[in-house]
Amino acid sequence: MINKKINIAVIGLGQVGNYLLNELNTKKKDIELKTGKKIEIVAISAKNKNKKRRFKINKSIFFKNPIDIIENKKINILFEVIGHSDGISKKIVETALKNKIHVITPNKALIAKHGDYLSKLAEKNKVNLEFEASVAGGIPILRTIKEGLATNKLIRVYGILNGTCNYILSEMEKTKDSFKSVLKKAQSLGYAEPENPKLDLNGYDAFAKIRILSSLAFNKKISKKNCLMEGIENLEYKDIEIASQLNFRIKLLGITELINGKLFERVHPSLVKKDSYIGNVNGVMNAVIVEGKPIGESVLQGEGAGPGATSSALMSDLLSILRGNIKYPFGIPDIKRKKSLSYNEKVSSNSLYLRLEVKDKPGVLSEITKLLANNKISIERVIQIPDHKKKSASIIIITHRALEYRSQNLINSLKRNKNIIKKPVQIRLF
Amino acid sequence: MINKKINIAVIGLGQVGNYLLNELNTKKKDIELKTGKKIEIVAISAKNKNKKRRFKINKSIFFKNPIDIIENKKINILFEVIGHSDGISKKIVETALKNKIHVITPNKALIAKHGDYLSKLAEKNKVNLEFEASVAGGIPILRTIKEGLATNKLIRVYGILNGTCNYILSEMEKTKDSFKSVLKKAQSLGYAEPENPKLDLNGYDAFAKIRILSSLAFNKKISKKNCLMEGIENLEYKDIEIASQLNFRIKLLGITELINGKLFERVHPSLVKKDSYIGNVNGVMNAVIVEGKPIGESVLQGEGAGPGATSSALMSDLLSILRGNIKYPFGIPDIKRKKSLSYNEKVSSNSLYLRLEVKDKPGVLSEITKLLANNKISIERVIQIPDHKKKSASIIIITHRALEYRSQNLINSLKRNKNIIKKPVQIRLF
Repeated sequence: MINKKINIAVIGLGQVGNYLLNELNTKKKDIELKTGKKIEIVAISAKNKNKKRRFKINKSIFFKNPIDIIENKKINILFEVIGHSDGISKKIVETALKNKIHVITPNKALIAKHGDYLSKLAEKNKVNLEFEASVAGGIPILRTIKEGLATNKLIRVYGILNGTCNYILSEMEKTKDSFKSVLKKAQSLGYAEPENPKLDLNGYDAFAKIRILSSLAFNKKISKKNCLMEGIENLEYKDIEIASQLNFRIKLLGITELINGKLFERVHPSLVKKDSYIGNVNGVMNAVIVEGKPIGESVLQGEGAGPGATSSALMSDLLSILRGNIKYPFGIPDIKRKKSLSYNEKVSSNSLYLRLEVKDKPGVLSEITKLLANNKISIERVIQIPDHKKKSASIIIITHRALEYRSQNLINSLKRNKNIIKKPVQIRLF
Repeated sequence: MINKKINIAVIGLGQVGNYLLNELNTKKKDIELKTGKKIEIVAISAKNKNKKRRFKINKSIFFKNPIDIIENKKINILFEVIGHSDGISKKIVETALKNKIHVITPNKALIAKHGDYLSKLAEKNKVNLEFEASVAGGIPILRTIKEGLATNKLIRVYGILNGTCNYILSEMEKTKDSFKSVLKKAQSLGYAEPENPKLDLNGYDAFAKIRILSSLAFNKKISKKNCLMEGIENLEYKDIEIASQLNFRIKLLGITELINGKLFERVHPSLVKKDSYIGNVNGVMNAVIVEGKPIGESVLQGEGAGPGATSSALMSDLLSILRGNIKYPFGIPDIKRKKSLSYNEKVSSNSLYLRLEVKDKPGVLSEITKLLANNKISIERVIQIPDHKKKSASIIIITHRALEYRSQNLINSLKRNKNIIKKPVQIRLF
């Protein structure tokens, strides 16, 4: 990048893209001061040219078809802020890289799915592919792993990676409202997708981030295997309340670690102690904890999403490129990144919180405890809360550590039991 | 740096330097993988060649006089790990930079005092001067400010920056032991300097770090003004106990912020809420909180000192240089860094915790409250705890917000009062 004037294109002008555009426009001087480079936004594109936006757009540089931009304008750096895992997002990024254009994107779905292919393409064409904003926007976690902790041997990375879920769980605790009604509130505040919040709630979004973190932390190819992925859709206020009485909070955790050299990635609701660090990360905040040698434990916390935090990360990628910083998208050359061996999650073990809604009649508890015994799962604690009106009861069981395959067998037999009147709720202790 | 083989010198082989040497020796392959560069340690130097060290040193590359290394060996990158603010440390760094050698140092005293001059020298000679390890070793905070949050407008940076003090305060709370006895324990564990722990305890060490953080966060020259600097030497277990009863913890905080464009730096013990984030950073951990736009609040926590955490930061500096990353030591060109205007700390305001040891006789409380009234400081809460044996009493006062100059006048008049039998203890609420 010898020329001093850098041509920039922004594709996608939703909340994030529009905010980013304003940042780029208002911080040109600061960017020049820090990098010695002048930037100019020469092209923008989005689905809808005339949509009402927070910051006005310059319609004279608007392109209907983003691919035209790559063909017609001498772009140096392109921001892809559309967000699909495939389709037009992939097409744009691919075409840009092939045309030796640096790409910056917050698109975790795209990177988690096609990151290996795209990073190889970037290396081949000697341009950067940067995606700091794809994981925990307000936390510069990717840069921290690639640079700040560069020579540490990392063992485990985990945290709260989905602001939507964390907001819903915190708000349920605070207001005692139901999952449904808090979800509606989250949607009205812009913390959850208005039309299809499923990918946040079922753990998919956090899992994409975990895949990206794994590959960076352990210098491996992105894993394709689906290990444990559970969301928060089945939790009720009741679970939050009971957890609280037991001095726990429920958090959706994403965890990746190497166990005997094998990769174990998972996302699921977890009971964490109320007085632990992670138990006190509330609302839309994200937190990531990195464990390694010689660093010990490093903790990073910040806003996980929203246009401001995401733009902050996109801008840090821009400055990194303008300063001529590192080129390997995943920290080491693509050719050196090996496939990771998968840990067999069935032999992992956890203590479990189980909530069973049962008919209030004699012998039920005995039936249930027998099922646990059959699966060699021992009980630490049992609480039975009767509901005389409904002639039912909630049975809460905290187990000692149990092997995952045994827990799964147990849950299956519990589901078949006729005295259990609702789908059993299972939360792992962290 | 066109040559692929990089010659490295390490000056200073105390705990940190020795640990670093071992990291360099054992991670050569990892470094080559991540940067494409081969490193070789070609010279080392220390006061004592034959001291017993954790990791063996290669005596065939030992130099008695470190300056000889610069003159005789073709060094590319030099680590200064001695740690003085002047003298030989300054001399080595200066000579290296003038000879176009990149310098990496964890020496906060040197950078806080001579950082402006040395960074100018580095820029002039087109080499890097890197000092990530000078502030909160295990937390890549400087890199985060310079890169991860590069275009944010930062408003305030604060945190727990001295692990020694934080360990002592946490341990006093846990064991109910006296300051003196916990200090001894800290010394025996290597958490406090065995001979002269003063610079940690009186706030000087944290203040040096605050100066470095200010200049990076606000893009200014390093300030020379001494604002509020108080240490923890006068605190007693009693204060920790009373604070705890009021639901507070005592932490030594370093704080830097811009108030109406003026720089306000300070280090002093602070009362923080027990359930706040910062109130739960215990032991030798450090934490830094960065507030800015659009990022909101970003939190980083990790081990603050020790050979492992410090080496991790030194190694990240090494990789940054080997990757050819940014050159401005303070993020922007020296010539663009202006002097900062100083905020008049006398017009700052804080609520105060005061502990006064008084003679147990009639009229004392009335005298004291009159002094507060005279200084226009209003009282939120008073607790009097009698000590019948000693015929004395402790009076604890929590005030409403009071202007600093009024608090100082108050403290001076309290010191002169004959019914107050010990130096008043004053802790600001955060």
